[in-house]
Order: sequence, then C-alpha cells, then structure tokens
Amino acid sequence: MKLYDLEASGNCYKVRLFAALANIELEKVPVDFLNGAHKQPPLSDMNPLGQLPVLEDGAQVFRDSQAILVYLAGAYGGLAWWPAHPQGQAEIVQWLSFAANEVQHSLCAARLVQKFGYDLDQSAALAKAPAVLALLDAHLQRHDWLALGRPTIADCAVYPYVVLSPEGGVELEPYSHVARWMKRMEELPGFLPKP
Amino acid sequence: MKLYDLEASGNCYKVRLFAALANIELEKVPVDFLNGAHKQPPLSDMNPLGQLPVLEDGAQVFRDSQAILVYLAGAYGGLAWWPAHPQGQAEIVQWLSFAANEVQHSLCAARLVQKFGYDLDQSAALAKAPAVLALLDAHLQRHDWLALGRPTIADCAVYPYVVLSPEGGVELEPYSHVARWMKRMEELPGFLPKP
Repeated sequence: MKLYDLEASGNCYKVRLFAALANIELEKVPVDFLNGAHKQPPLSDMNPLGQLPVLEDGAQVFRDSQAILVYLAGAYGGLAWWPAHPQGQAEIVQWLSFAANEVQHSLCAARLVQKFGYDLDQSAALAKAPAVLALLDAHLQRHDWLALGRPTIADCAVYPYVVLSPEGGVELEPYSHVARWMKRMEELPGFLPKP
Repeated sequence: MKLYDLEASGNCYKVRLFAALANIELEKVPVDFLNGAHKQPPLSDMNPLGQLPVLEDGAQVFRDSQAILVYLAGAYGGLAWWPAHPQGQAEIVQWLSFAANEVQHSLCAARLVQKFGYDLDQSAALAKAPAVLALLDAHLQRHDWLALGRPTIADCAVYPYVVLSPEGGVELEPYSHVARWMKRMEELPGFLPKP
C-alpha cells in the first residue's frame, strides 16, 4: 500500500500518524512537490485536485486525508478508530469536516503562507485561528478526546495542524486543554512526532 | 427527529434534500437566524460553532451537514446511500470533504456575499469557482454520480451549492456534464427543489 507523501505536509502527516498509531504498514513514496509532480500525471490522474496525500491500495486510489483515514481505519485499523454504528461515525465526521474546513482555512492556511510563501490571505487565516482553538479548548475541557471518549481518526485529523500551528505564527499557550490533549496524543503507543 | 433549519441555507438544504429522497421524516424547526438565535443558547450549546443545520434525534445531537448526512443515512437511509464497506465510505468521504472545503469556500462563499452581504472575500471565492466546477464536470463526464455509480449522500452534499451558485454570480452554462447530473438528481423520486 503506497502513500504518495510530502514530509512537510500536515495533511500527509495525518495519514502517517494514524498508520503509526494503528500499526498499519505504508510504503511512503516521496513526491517532488517543488517541481509540481502532484499536478502532473500520473498523480494528477490519481487526484485531479492536485493535492497530497494520495493513497494507493492495489486498484483502489483515494485522495483527501480525511477519506484516507476512513479507508485505512475501516479496512485495517479496527472499530476502535472508526466504529460501525452511525452515531459514532457521525460524531467523528463532525471533526473530519472541522479539519477540512475550519482548521484548513485557519491554522493550516497561516502556516502555508508563513512557512511556504503561499498566496493566501494570511490575516484572514490568523483572524480565524483563535475561534478554532477556543472551540477545541472548550470541547477538550469536558472531553479527553474529540469523539467517542477514546482516540479515533477524529484526533488524527485535527492534531497535526494544531501541533504545527506555531509555524504559522499562531500561539498555543492560551489553550491549556488543547495542550493536555496534545500530550495525551503524544503518549499513545506508536505515536509519530510532527515533521 | 428535529432539524434546526434555515430555509435559505444550502447546508440545511443538503439535509432536507436527502431526507426527502430517502423518505425520512424530519420536524423542521425554523431558527431566527437574523436575530442570531443560532449563536445563543440553546442552539449554541447544541452546536458551539454557531452554525446551522443542527439535528436532534432523542438524546443525540449532531452539527455539520456532512455528519448529519452520515447519521441519517446510516441510521435511517439504508446502505444504498452510505454503504458499510470502507472503500465505499472513503469514496463518499472524498466528496464530503470537497463539500466542506472546496465547495464551501467557492460557490457557497460567493453566494453568502452576494445574497446575504457576508464579509467574505468575494473575488477569492469567485476565482476558485471555475476550478471547482471544472473538476466536477470532468468527473461527471465519466460518471453518472459522484460516488459508487449510484446516488449517495455525496451527491446530496455537493448538489445544493452547485444549483444555488448562480445566486453567487457563478455561471453554470460552461459545465454540460454538471448540468446533466443536476437533471439526473432532479428526476430522482422524492426530489426536493432548491429553496
């Protein structure tokens, strides 16, 4: 099973982190991102959005880090990470959407500008970040994990851009419950540190 | 089962559309959005993001239109709309992320500015729209439906902001495969037209 990968990408790190925690073996295929290999065939045929990561498992190809987490957990990770019942799946999907929307357009976007020089609206991204972190902090004040009272792919989808957010100029100090959740993540067996 | 609803919202329409197609009965509770009822208790306790829709099914409460689709389909809609196997779920989640990220920040954002006067970057939203629609059009040139070769919650998550996009100043005429897919959606038994 191949992960088309960029080491510095938080979206790729979501998948590498989950695979490490769930003890799933992935062959990492580094992609020549600087030369735009992700926007050219064969990768642009595998993911027309021209984004990483891409997962290839035999004839199956998946784009989007959230979808890849669902696939890996469902096919190889076991029900602890992604349950079979709709309440549990929906509770997790709430956080997958939060990762794809709110986190992506705040913590991730700020880092893309500051660290990689992307042409995105940095001030808009930074303006959104405190609300995103405050919401997480309030949730984690009452819960040890994002969903189901245990580590799931929801945590793997959200943790990467939180722990990487200082690289985008976002301060994590005010969010003590987020800090304790990050520490719980980092103490999980098999945990893979940020790139 | 109660849907806290705003008639004009495309995200609420995703849920109403799917419930109509899958013949799921929802009690619609109109929310006084103009007076900010979604940002005050009890709704802000049910969804700290202060967004609609919110679904309440007995003691279960879900935010996020994508998560609500997963819940409704899994609990009441049957496997045709949301299968049990991880390949099918991941194929659909690719499009749920596309709805939460790419569609939300292009077609939806442009409409929020033009129709409702939201303080968002309209030119950035309009600049992203053609790539989003071209990607959909290319996919729908080779597929009748977004995932699994049949109507699923993926179509219900993406169709609303596509059909509503002219209200944001986005032209749909260039995308003939998108137009044919919209027609297929509109011919499904139980189809609910846009607000």
